[in-house]
Amino acid sequence: MRSGTAFTQGLRQAVGDGPAWTVEAVRQVRYHVVSSDGLFEPGNTALLDGCPDVPMKRGERRLVVIDENVDVLYGAQVRDWFAAHGIEAAVVPLRADETVKQWDAVSRVVDAMNDFGIDRRREPVLAIGGGVLTDIVGFAASLYRRGTPYIRIPTTLIGLVDAGVGVKTGVNYERGKNRLGTYAPATATFLDRTFLRSLPYRHVSNGLAEILKMALIRSEDLFRLLEEHGPAVRADRFQGTTPELAAASDAIVAEAIHLMLEELQPNLWESELERCVDYGHTFSPTLEMHALPELLHGEAVVIDMALTTAMATLRGDVTAAQADRIHSAIRGLGLPAWNDVLHDTALLEDALRDTVRHRDGRQRLPLPMGIGRHRFVNDVTPGELRDAAALLWEHHRPAEPAAAAPARVPEQVGA
Amino acid sequence: MRSGTAFTQGLRQAVGDGPAWTVEAVRQVRYHVVSSDGLFEPGNTALLDGCPDVPMKRGERRLVVIDENVDVLYGAQVRDWFAAHGIEAAVVPLRADETVKQWDAVSRVVDAMNDFGIDRRREPVLAIGGGVLTDIVGFAASLYRRGTPYIRIPTTLIGLVDAGVGVKTGVNYERGKNRLGTYAPATATFLDRTFLRSLPYRHVSNGLAEILKMALIRSEDLFRLLEEHGPAVRADRFQGTTPELAAASDAIVAEAIHLMLEELQPNLWESELERCVDYGHTFSPTLEMHALPELLHGEAVVIDMALTTAMATLRGDVTAAQADRIHSAIRGLGLPAWNDVLHDTALLEDALRDTVRHRDGRQRLPLPMGIGRHRFVNDVTPGELRDAAALLWEHHRPAEPAAAAPARVPEQVGA
Repeated sequence: MRSGTAFTQGLRQAVGDGPAWTVEAVRQVRYHVVSSDGLFEPGNTALLDGCPDVPMKRGERRLVVIDENVDVLYGAQVRDWFAAHGIEAAVVPLRADETVKQWDAVSRVVDAMNDFGIDRRREPVLAIGGGVLTDIVGFAASLYRRGTPYIRIPTTLIGLVDAGVGVKTGVNYERGKNRLGTYAPATATFLDRTFLRSLPYRHVSNGLAEILKMALIRSEDLFRLLEEHGPAVRADRFQGTTPELAAASDAIVAEAIHLMLEELQPNLWESELERCVDYGHTFSPTLEMHALPELLHGEAVVIDMALTTAMATLRGDVTAAQADRIHSAIRGLGLPAWNDVLHDTALLEDALRDTVRHRDGRQRLPLPMGIGRHRFVNDVTPGELRDAAALLWEHHRPAEPAAAAPARVPEQVGA
Repeated sequence: MRSGTAFTQGLRQAVGDGPAWTVEAVRQVRYHVVSSDGLFEPGNTALLDGCPDVPMKRGERRLVVIDENVDVLYGAQVRDWFAAHGIEAAVVPLRADETVKQWDAVSRVVDAMNDFGIDRRREPVLAIGGGVLTDIVGFAASLYRRGTPYIRIPTTLIGLVDAGVGVKTGVNYERGKNRLGTYAPATATFLDRTFLRSLPYRHVSNGLAEILKMALIRSEDLFRLLEEHGPAVRADRFQGTTPELAAASDAIVAEAIHLMLEELQPNLWESELERCVDYGHTFSPTLEMHALPELLHGEAVVIDMALTTAMATLRGDVTAAQADRIHSAIRGLGLPAWNDVLHDTALLEDALRDTVRHRDGRQRLPLPMGIGRHRFVNDVTPGELRDAAALLWEHHRPAEPAAAAPARVPEQVGA
């Protein structure tokens, strides 16, 4: 599916023992990611005319599904904005955390769409919340009448830079993480960093983990931004309260999203299994399952990255000095680089086996080369896993306390 | 999406108040429809090598979901075939009729995929049954890990010529018919008419209704085949027991499928709302809902076609002689042309309103022009509906008894 592919369309009939047909068709997909801070401030019209594919006009109706915690903090402002612009909004609060990311939550969104009597050609659903909420609403919308457009408004950092800009929807099933889902991008995602002012610091760090992932694998420039400004923009929750913080925050978010979209665009349906955006996602799904609810997603990802950085160090692809810089950066972003489950080599082997099964029989493991580049390997052995964990254990020091918090503001719970 | 569309790919960044991105990508879809009678006879290897995109080899495993009624009649033969070819098959019977076409049935298929530990890159799921079963299994497969390939083996005539060759999956939700679903074609559909030997005559007629639809709207040649041979191939259940019946049965099935695929291919995702394959599907969803369980899907479709033929007659697009031929053909195929709900003009108006809502605000109603051609109209009035129903009532005569059945064979129940 990379560039150069020739697309074919048509209907061919062959005659063997009986007639046989081959149907070929091509589908065009397009979606937009638009930045606009303060979406629900009275004078902001980005949601009306910021994306030409989903215009919204006075007199129309919209179904708005909002995370119940976000609703407590911002629900009144959201309702006021719709009323001020003459849009009849049905605002439906939904509980959305990992423990309820199941079919039942999808069913509740479908009920809301039925009750609303949604017109799938004219009334895209709006989803306001973190990655769990937008995954649930996106899944429901993608199934309703085989596809109803939706719009994402992420309210967490991980939603802004990761879940909110890709094409995946889904829910967990039994013990399988995102076992059921679709590839169905929101027609538009609107990025509004002002929501982050109420995000708990641990969740700011959770999003920074996915930004660090893009830096380590793709961009030493982004890594330097995180080294220099990461702790300060974290303390500022990306609010840009000084010109320097605003510039750093803008640059970090824009660069992380741009790199992510560059990787996603040629491989939207994951037909190519060597995905560098899977960096940090080889061992982390198993770590996350075993350590839940101790670890957030981004925390599990950064522990995976620390382990694979150790592997790359042992292979001579990352120098000791580069590894030190990486560990300093991890600490500076308020993230952990170690979890005691790493002592369990058998678990790491299980995790690798599971990943191999998902990557069609090969490891296809992205490993860093220095800082900002990567390669894929298929020859990782149990001994190497054990040695890397041992090396990481030497590096490991208790995380320092988080940077001092600025003036207290109301915080989103959970997310 | 018709021919001539230019597809675009790439990532564009714009800078307004903040950065904005547009992601464009193109997805190629391909699927196969392969005829092979007697798929589960010991020497038949079509399922092993009949479709290059889904080869199956000795030593592999497959999950096989089979309609529980089909399992009673053919399950032993199916299991023997897999055993003889060295395929480890987990055969899972599933109840699949319109009343259980709900999420619970999808969930049962997902459980079976989890229990099997399916490898989504190497082990396509097989679905053996009628349209309800293949819709349920196709839906589950399309969601599992965001897309696991599946193979359809229809066992009913409507599955062979309609549900089995398109790209839609789905289930009902509350009172909404196929309210939830995906566009996800089976990688391959294998057409085996020997299953029809156990199909109740009413269900043979049910499939003939969809064939008649294609004839009326697209092909006077196919209509002539149905006029001349329809009653006999119905009595023969498409088994081809004489050379003449075999030739007629081959021609009718192949022509119906070819016309259907010609219409589907350029419009797989239904972006074009003027679809002639929607002929007979304007009033029938409402008729079906109100008359359930009295009417099968194809029966509701043929009543809709009788009504719209009357409309075309009143408009001068179909002559009285052509209308007589159409009514004779309907009777000859063992199908009804009237249901007393047609006396309820308010219901017909409701049905039209509902259809308009699904067709983005316009009627886009396919009406026959003579036999084998059509046009789309947007100006149907309540008065016209009443007049057409009155005209049809004049045409209406009690259906003649079905043609005499050949030697008794075991029949699939329900389907």
